[in-house]
Amino acid sequence: MTALQRIFGGAAPVARWATPPEYFRNGERRGLAMRSAIAAVALAMCATGVTAQDIRATGDLGLVVERATGSLVVVDQSERARIGRIEGLGDLSHASLVYSPDERFAYVFGRDGGLTKVDIVEQSVVGRVMQAGNSIGGAISDDGQYVAVSNYEPGGVRIFDADTLDMVADIPTGGKTIGLVDIPGGRFVFSLWDQGETWIADLSSGAARITKIEGIGTNPYDALVTSDGRTYIAGLFGEDHLTALDLWQDTPQPQKILPGYAGDREGLPVYKMPHLEGWALAGHEFVLPAIGQHEVLWVDARSLQETGRTATHGQPVFAMARPDGRQVWVNFAHPKNDTIQVIDTITKDVIHQFEPGPGVLHMEFTPRGHEVWLSVRDAGKIMVYDTQTFEKLREIDAESPSGIFFTARAHRTGL
Amino acid sequence: MTALQRIFGGAAPVARWATPPEYFRNGERRGLAMRSAIAAVALAMCATGVTAQDIRATGDLGLVVERATGSLVVVDQSERARIGRIEGLGDLSHASLVYSPDERFAYVFGRDGGLTKVDIVEQSVVGRVMQAGNSIGGAISDDGQYVAVSNYEPGGVRIFDADTLDMVADIPTGGKTIGLVDIPGGRFVFSLWDQGETWIADLSSGAARITKIEGIGTNPYDALVTSDGRTYIAGLFGEDHLTALDLWQDTPQPQKILPGYAGDREGLPVYKMPHLEGWALAGHEFVLPAIGQHEVLWVDARSLQETGRTATHGQPVFAMARPDGRQVWVNFAHPKNDTIQVIDTITKDVIHQFEPGPGVLHMEFTPRGHEVWLSVRDAGKIMVYDTQTFEKLREIDAESPSGIFFTARAHRTGL
Repeated sequence: MTALQRIFGGAAPVARWATPPEYFRNGERRGLAMRSAIAAVALAMCATGVTAQDIRATGDLGLVVERATGSLVVVDQSERARIGRIEGLGDLSHASLVYSPDERFAYVFGRDGGLTKVDIVEQSVVGRVMQAGNSIGGAISDDGQYVAVSNYEPGGVRIFDADTLDMVADIPTGGKTIGLVDIPGGRFVFSLWDQGETWIADLSSGAARITKIEGIGTNPYDALVTSDGRTYIAGLFGEDHLTALDLWQDTPQPQKILPGYAGDREGLPVYKMPHLEGWALAGHEFVLPAIGQHEVLWVDARSLQETGRTATHGQPVFAMARPDGRQVWVNFAHPKNDTIQVIDTITKDVIHQFEPGPGVLHMEFTPRGHEVWLSVRDAGKIMVYDTQTFEKLREIDAESPSGIFFTARAHRTGL
Repeated sequence: MTALQRIFGGAAPVARWATPPEYFRNGERRGLAMRSAIAAVALAMCATGVTAQDIRATGDLGLVVERATGSLVVVDQSERARIGRIEGLGDLSHASLVYSPDERFAYVFGRDGGLTKVDIVEQSVVGRVMQAGNSIGGAISDDGQYVAVSNYEPGGVRIFDADTLDMVADIPTGGKTIGLVDIPGGRFVFSLWDQGETWIADLSSGAARITKIEGIGTNPYDALVTSDGRTYIAGLFGEDHLTALDLWQDTPQPQKILPGYAGDREGLPVYKMPHLEGWALAGHEFVLPAIGQHEVLWVDARSLQETGRTATHGQPVFAMARPDGRQVWVNFAHPKNDTIQVIDTITKDVIHQFEPGPGVLHMEFTPRGHEVWLSVRDAGKIMVYDTQTFEKLREIDAESPSGIFFTARAHRTGL
């Protein structure tokens, strides 16, 4: 998961393009509380406490971040229901999480530097370390052995044993790290805001071997990797283009793409930075929320050239493709964050628009795309829609819900 | 799942290209035993019978078909171990299976027309119907509500409620059906051997609405759909090309692709029909086992034009891309079915070759591709390899293992 793939909070404008986005200005030192405070939560379940209805397969579960209360709602996609709650996770603004390969454990990355391991079956916290003072996102290695966290304060990446949460590698960078993703081969990729570099940390030997790639550009603020783990793309705060790396090359060379992409910065105030997660593949194209504009960009997935634009209701935050790529669902920055638009991939036209409610912060599709779940923060609801009929199927109560994470993410690369 | 995506058995040559493949000649009538014999297996688990170690998340489990004994081995990917066995599934030659969205239940399609529902958590058969006399594969709808089975005897497709195994739709076609796959929108697609048609069955309303597309070509013998559910491609027994359909079109029109593809039929005896599952996306290309030749074909994923060929050790049966697309693993027809070759996607060169043992029938990658499991039938072993180092990590005993199916398939379209 990368920084801009986080669920940003706050209904108020947080940044204009001309100043660094919110999280870069949040520089107060909280001190590095490197207490290896793994909660020794015993698996208290015993024979007498378990009944048949406790046996849950984990393939259709999920967790929804309740940012205001530092808790997670456990949901069941098939039942379209909340089935539990896990509390005590600290500051969950900008929180995200990844799943273990068996879809049982989630690793939750809190803004406060907390790394919390929760058991979705037993609905409990099974481990927690304060691993930094200010962090933003993490990733899990392809074999499920290592969990990496990207830190602002102190800068760098720390890597933990997924079983024990013991730290196995500390990679200081002398500054903020962003755009941390996993790629095949037990590797992690991330970028350095200050130095404009991208580093690859290879954990396949058990220790971190670092490859450094210079010349990414001025102030990468977020990055993503394509779902095959091949193309890493960094957004740049100080340049008028993005930078791509082909990670299949022996020595990846930075390639400028979408020159002039940021040329419209003056156009409109940027209430929220768009999320690069929007680079979902829709047919033969990627879809990208345009920065500071009321439009999404279409980009050829192979050439990385712009192929079109679609005018939208507001400034897009997420532009997410349904898993089959036939539709793109877009939510918007404040004050238009009560609305969703659905774009058809073939015509690039908006085919549906509706207002789920105030503060639509995140969307998550069921793995095969037949339904989509929306977090409607200020309504205190998670809403479930049929993606074919657009019918609302269910409302589920939650406290200020933000990010929605289904367990199927366990099987995907680069999240 | 489509017909040629099955694990074919038999070490001996079963067909030359000039005659129909084995399963078409297997025309003996077994009679339609439409006994609605859902085994009323009570969930006998009670509080006193369950312990903490019985709690298993299902995201990293799998089933391996033991063809000779009509049983399934339950495996755990993370532990690289067998954790149980499920018996009593009838004739499992050419068997395949699909998973429920929660990754708890598998629907097993036996050659004898049996449709068996098994619980991978409790490791038991929870339902079984003899739904036809001779069937070949099935699929599950995107919402997990419907399971469809493709039948030879009697021909047609039957669709069942995934919970109860009650039949909800009977679609007779007057002949054999092949290439049954699921696509988004509660739909199934399949083709008719005799009529050269492709039908789309839309179950979204609860009843089957049929769309028929004529002119697919003479005797489609198998088909596949791309992972986004968009492009359906049929292999033709009686034509010198393949036929593609763009299912995103309102009225899909048959398009001839790879003309001359079958032109080398005279070249070598065809010991096994290649499996179209080999059309995995590797970078920007699909990989296809060439019929009757010692080579694989590379096909541009967008234009569907041939882009290259790689000479191989024998006649390829499966050419499967690692999930990230960087490698393609190939197994071969008898008598070279003791060997695996690994091809690099960029150079299209064979970069590794080894002999796991006699009768390598199937391969399944872990969802993020760090390991691959092989069925080595005549060694009575499942073998697990690291895909980066090619090191063998584990051998697991099994009786004549064939198809390997990991639960992550639950989240994918078109299997």
